[in-house]
Amino acid sequence: MNFSSKLLENAVSEMSQLPGIGKRTALRLVLFLLQQPNSQTKDLSNALNELIEHVILCESCHNISDNKICEICTSSKRDKKVICVVEDIRDVMAIESTGQFNGIYHVLGGKISPVEGIGPNQLNISSLVKKVNSNQISEIILALSATMEGDTTNFYIYKHLENFEIKITTIARGVSVGNELEYTDEVTLGRSIVKRILFENSIKNIL
Amino acid sequence: MNFSSKLLENAVSEMSQLPGIGKRTALRLVLFLLQQPNSQTKDLSNALNELIEHVILCESCHNISDNKICEICTSSKRDKKVICVVEDIRDVMAIESTGQFNGIYHVLGGKISPVEGIGPNQLNISSLVKKVNSNQISEIILALSATMEGDTTNFYIYKHLENFEIKITTIARGVSVGNELEYTDEVTLGRSIVKRILFENSIKNIL
Repeated sequence: MNFSSKLLENAVSEMSQLPGIGKRTALRLVLFLLQQPNSQTKDLSNALNELIEHVILCESCHNISDNKICEICTSSKRDKKVICVVEDIRDVMAIESTGQFNGIYHVLGGKISPVEGIGPNQLNISSLVKKVNSNQISEIILALSATMEGDTTNFYIYKHLENFEIKITTIARGVSVGNELEYTDEVTLGRSIVKRILFENSIKNIL
Repeated sequence: MNFSSKLLENAVSEMSQLPGIGKRTALRLVLFLLQQPNSQTKDLSNALNELIEHVILCESCHNISDNKICEICTSSKRDKKVICVVEDIRDVMAIESTGQFNGIYHVLGGKISPVEGIGPNQLNISSLVKKVNSNQISEIILALSATMEGDTTNFYIYKHLENFEIKITTIARGVSVGNELEYTDEVTLGRSIVKRILFENSIKNIL
């Protein structure tokens, strides 16, 4: 691209470093900012700078937080005996927005993936084991992706926790609510038949 | 969305002000920045701040520029007698990247659009008329979008310039190079048959 301004070129090149944003999109975004009041761009860059300078990971659950210990971990309303293990902060947000979980979280920071060179030591697994060891935990809920990497990580964690006297559960996998059977993939549908549950159990928590 | 951090929420909310970027994408971008070295976020916000603080519109052609008069307008290699009229700076970049134009530009800053409330007074049309009036201009090339708004703007400019002794041209409209006829829309194909040109003329500038 032929830029008539070095400043514009710099801004576009920095913007296009973001994932999924190519040069053309970056140019569109930057030209949009140029058409807005200068304050908008300043608000954006201030918010980003503030975030990277002051954000903290909760020392207990590794969730993004403004304080040393996050709001969920300090809340007196949450059941500290139930820990939900998730891959990253987006999963915390997704589960929180369901309003169905009242325990606390433990963010691994990814999942075991030999292809991407991520081993168990790069994840927050040892701190989870320590937490289980030194606190009264009754249940660990494994809520990782339903992929091979997720399953591997699940199994690794299970192996490290099986000697403790706790219940280790995993979130239910099956046909999505609202999905028609004919559009469900074969693996999911097959599993959901093999792992069928008693009908009276299926309606217990809903009614 | 339930954010565990006010800083994160601010950053996501500012990022999602950009066109085509929703809350989810904004969250993805912000979390990506958090995983990168802090310098990347600083480079981005600095580049944006520098741009909005120091960028100038060329006083002659209204293109984005680092100086009062842009590089194209000051270049001794460009033919100052031929002015190509475009909507915005992206069109300048598009035409420049073809390497086929050696004149100078005039950026209107949009096109006449009653629907969006943009009238001729909000565009850089009077400065174009002044330029034609006070300089030796031989040709004005109208290179606006092939839409109703583009055509309206073309006609408006034509009406204001027709009394000057200059050639007013418009870029050729027809079947795109490399396109198969059957996939060309009917209006374009119809026009390109009505406005057919002598074959020997069509190859004159290519061979």
